[in-house]
Amino acid sequence: MDYKILNTIESPQQLKKLNFSELNILCSEIRDCIIDTVSKNGGHLASNLGTVELTVALHRVFDCPKDSILFDVGHQSYTHKLLTGRFHSFNTLRSENGISGFTDPKESDYDAFISGHSSSAVSAAYGIYKAKKLNGENGTAVAVVGDGAMTGGMVFEAINNIGEDKAKFLIVLNDNEMSISQNVGSLARHLNKIRSKSSYHTFKDGLARFLNSIPLIGKWLHKLLFRSKTVLKNAIYHSNVFEGLGLNYLGPVDGHNLKDVINLLNIAKNQERPTILHVVTAKGKGYKFAEENAGKYHGVGPFDPQCGVDNALKRDYSSVAGETLCELADADKKICALTAAMSEGTGLNDFALRYPERFFDVGIAEQHAMTFAAGLAKGGLSPYFAVYSSFLQRAYDQIIHDVAIDSLPVKILVDRAGLVGEDGKTHHGLFDISFLTSIPNMTVYSPASFDELKEIIKKTAKYSTPVAVRYPRGKEINSDLFKFTDRNFDVFGADSDTVIVTFGRLSYFAYEASNENNVSFIKLNKLSASDSQLINTLFKFNKICFFEEGIRSGGISEQIASRLCENGFKGQVIINAIDNDFVSCATVDSQLKKYNLDKNAMLGVTK
Amino acid sequence: MDYKILNTIESPQQLKKLNFSELNILCSEIRDCIIDTVSKNGGHLASNLGTVELTVALHRVFDCPKDSILFDVGHQSYTHKLLTGRFHSFNTLRSENGISGFTDPKESDYDAFISGHSSSAVSAAYGIYKAKKLNGENGTAVAVVGDGAMTGGMVFEAINNIGEDKAKFLIVLNDNEMSISQNVGSLARHLNKIRSKSSYHTFKDGLARFLNSIPLIGKWLHKLLFRSKTVLKNAIYHSNVFEGLGLNYLGPVDGHNLKDVINLLNIAKNQERPTILHVVTAKGKGYKFAEENAGKYHGVGPFDPQCGVDNALKRDYSSVAGETLCELADADKKICALTAAMSEGTGLNDFALRYPERFFDVGIAEQHAMTFAAGLAKGGLSPYFAVYSSFLQRAYDQIIHDVAIDSLPVKILVDRAGLVGEDGKTHHGLFDISFLTSIPNMTVYSPASFDELKEIIKKTAKYSTPVAVRYPRGKEINSDLFKFTDRNFDVFGADSDTVIVTFGRLSYFAYEASNENNVSFIKLNKLSASDSQLINTLFKFNKICFFEEGIRSGGISEQIASRLCENGFKGQVIINAIDNDFVSCATVDSQLKKYNLDKNAMLGVTK
Repeated sequence: MDYKILNTIESPQQLKKLNFSELNILCSEIRDCIIDTVSKNGGHLASNLGTVELTVALHRVFDCPKDSILFDVGHQSYTHKLLTGRFHSFNTLRSENGISGFTDPKESDYDAFISGHSSSAVSAAYGIYKAKKLNGENGTAVAVVGDGAMTGGMVFEAINNIGEDKAKFLIVLNDNEMSISQNVGSLARHLNKIRSKSSYHTFKDGLARFLNSIPLIGKWLHKLLFRSKTVLKNAIYHSNVFEGLGLNYLGPVDGHNLKDVINLLNIAKNQERPTILHVVTAKGKGYKFAEENAGKYHGVGPFDPQCGVDNALKRDYSSVAGETLCELADADKKICALTAAMSEGTGLNDFALRYPERFFDVGIAEQHAMTFAAGLAKGGLSPYFAVYSSFLQRAYDQIIHDVAIDSLPVKILVDRAGLVGEDGKTHHGLFDISFLTSIPNMTVYSPASFDELKEIIKKTAKYSTPVAVRYPRGKEINSDLFKFTDRNFDVFGADSDTVIVTFGRLSYFAYEASNENNVSFIKLNKLSASDSQLINTLFKFNKICFFEEGIRSGGISEQIASRLCENGFKGQVIINAIDNDFVSCATVDSQLKKYNLDKNAMLGVTK
Repeated sequence: MDYKILNTIESPQQLKKLNFSELNILCSEIRDCIIDTVSKNGGHLASNLGTVELTVALHRVFDCPKDSILFDVGHQSYTHKLLTGRFHSFNTLRSENGISGFTDPKESDYDAFISGHSSSAVSAAYGIYKAKKLNGENGTAVAVVGDGAMTGGMVFEAINNIGEDKAKFLIVLNDNEMSISQNVGSLARHLNKIRSKSSYHTFKDGLARFLNSIPLIGKWLHKLLFRSKTVLKNAIYHSNVFEGLGLNYLGPVDGHNLKDVINLLNIAKNQERPTILHVVTAKGKGYKFAEENAGKYHGVGPFDPQCGVDNALKRDYSSVAGETLCELADADKKICALTAAMSEGTGLNDFALRYPERFFDVGIAEQHAMTFAAGLAKGGLSPYFAVYSSFLQRAYDQIIHDVAIDSLPVKILVDRAGLVGEDGKTHHGLFDISFLTSIPNMTVYSPASFDELKEIIKKTAKYSTPVAVRYPRGKEINSDLFKFTDRNFDVFGADSDTVIVTFGRLSYFAYEASNENNVSFIKLNKLSASDSQLINTLFKFNKICFFEEGIRSGGISEQIASRLCENGFKGQVIINAIDNDFVSCATVDSQLKKYNLDKNAMLGVTK
């Protein structure tokens, strides 16, 4: 591609010298660059196309890195990356040793904070802001929050804290009328009302016009009603949720009108109290396919920009989970499905259409989702909450307190368990084994194939206690190898002194490695260290090699090893897992190789 | 005590037959009974005295257990317990095999849901409500939420979800103008505004009066402004935060006027859409000492009801932590302290007075507190977040995502780590070892004495990475035994083949047991399994006996045992910990005995 302005931008300071016609060309070039790169590398498309003008405006008005701009979520930060010295490396987006698809302070000083999980930027930005003030530094911190992220309770916790401060602190609400799929909840409706004609702005103007049109007393009445401290003024000025919570509200402004956004940002920047600026953007702006179906173009793999993403239905663990829930729901009216704004990603779209009364998309609100599910279970229903492993971390206390203590039959479908590849550090599901298996009353399954996933989900429908079923992102490697056996573990391979112990996706490698090296292989279906049959079986071996696609500390390998140790096992034990590290972006294959979790590592250890 | 009415109440159905003068006598008897029992057993006093009339009214209007009433937090449920068949066992409150200080479905069908952690009842109640509707059952579910609990983001997640439903669902906001200590945040200010004269209710009445007083056109103007669908009506009817979020708002009503509360509950019960009823109560109502200082009478030990709780300053781990932070803050302007509405409980009251600019009470909002601390750290300050272990579970994802990935120097003071005794299942700090040690970049200390706690906190001030310091509730057992050594572990006792390995409070028992049985004792100061010096030292023994006051799965004992196993340890290993269980209320001594964590257990295992 041939860029005239974008390729000259080394730092955001240069934006300040451009005129509006140059800025508009720049915006157009940024869009081309994003579409071009994402079509090759995959990534987040619609969200980034929606924030081009907003980001250019932010960097025009603020001085980074003296000022800190925090994006919530970071998947709207591509324009920010292009403007902050990363245009020339942008072709490495989401690849090994390349630049991350999210903001990462280790990558650039312009990335003020990590941001892969939603709803955290207001808290972090306010912390950075207060630190600057307490340190006597110049500069400020701005949080740019999507309307989807606004549904996370953390944002309200932050606003509740900020609203009583006298801080010159700015939150930019990037309202694209959806989070990842269509936005949900009463806040969305409230935003819609603000955007609509009945908003208090037009109300105020309208009432003023109306009053002023009344002969004789109209002007007097207007003055009376709008004089400071009248109840009417109070009522009007505090007539939206944000103002009720103590924020100064500005907007709404068209987020694709560069001049308007810059003007309003300059006004917002100089407010003497915490302010929220409401910017309305369109997801996918400037790329026809993405404008028409922003949900589909939220996160994409490589595609042909002329044709768009192909429409072939993909069958993966998520779709199998969704399809199984539909089968269950057909036969049993007590089956419900829940998602926290990830209906498409977790394969629940079809369920949502077929059983709308029993489908609950609660917004980006994992805490509420879990406890709401607990309530449904307490009321006698059979709720399945499908959620990405790394986002499930948000509901950790709710699993312990609201689900497990009373041992309620909430079923957690832990999607994206294990390594996820290109999304990197913030998105891997590496902790769920450790935190779920430590919770009393909880059962954890880790199927390796579509067939196992389907049958285990069916099996859990009859559970009267909490249960989690964890499965990786993507497709099964071989559909013939592992069929559901309804056993806690299965033994494969040769009769040997040496055994590979693993579960889930790594089972495919273990199967092959055990065959090639003529050793045994134990595939764990249920992750439990207190299974005496498993311990007895392991005692038959002299060398036990664990491979765990998860964090080592507290993982199932350590738990089983500790039981072996207690029971007096005298043989050799080797644990391969991800030890005390966060995993950067690369392909899953490359990540597995790096952490000695691939077939070669298994061959090496067992030869 | 001599009760005339209370001792006749076996079920809440009986309330419906009493007249108002009898109900008022009942309320008075309930207060006497609560004061009498709490003065003997300890417990939550001020919150329970504040909800006597409200609870009587709820049970008069609703039909439990067909209707479900959920208290948020459950420490306002004593009246509910007294009215639902537990008057005669109420003297066993918070004792072993007695009744819990919180609601517990295992204890009574009238306890609709577990409730020891804040801000979860709206989610759970909505789940129960939806289940009843989907099952075609009669009955409803009501959430009774304290204004403190309202500052937790989960409540907003739930309201956002509920606000767009057409459900006949009721939330009762019990507004006592504080959570545990003085309430904070802009929501509190907003509630205050609603309570005050400038509320929209008086506004509407006032404007109507004003308009009607205008000669000739006043009535016409009033009609015009208030006709349905006018913008003014919209603005007025949606002029508080709850209405902005789609709830129907009723109130405020005096929560100690039984007749008014009952009347308004009957109205609220029949609304055709989700409704919030704002009830204003006074914490400590009816007991002079508690009315005057509700914070001090939130949770109390046994006391003389004539004299009140004694004012002697207690020195415990919390106060030592607070005092150490003050010392640090004196010398270093970068030291900050944070609490999530637990300033008194975590010993930070003095810090708050001395360094108000660097003290942050964010409300019951652990998620925000953690990420706000991360922002402060990112901005170059040195934040300490003091928080109870069980409530820290709420910030699990924030520790991983916002603190640990970028390895920010946030210091977590984990108060109430381990068993807490009478507060029971929901309040023990049994998971923090497992979840904190599994997080990369995190260091975890577990001091056993005031001296160690003080010196370790001082040491962490220089840390540039995340660190947690965990310590139990209450006092040190012996101030002379364990002085700070700045080593990761210390070896005590005889030169023996057998060693006890433990940490924290159990160290006192281990010290004595190792002396009596003439065995060795390794006291872990830092909880880390990857310490090769520790592993080498342990290899000198033939029998290693771990004692861990925490959950077994993923705990430090299992982690170390797995390393021993990998390194080829051939001796005997025994792990004593709390295995797959939630611990009911009893004294800490009794709990330690039950789980084989006391001195006798150590003597038995090592003899």
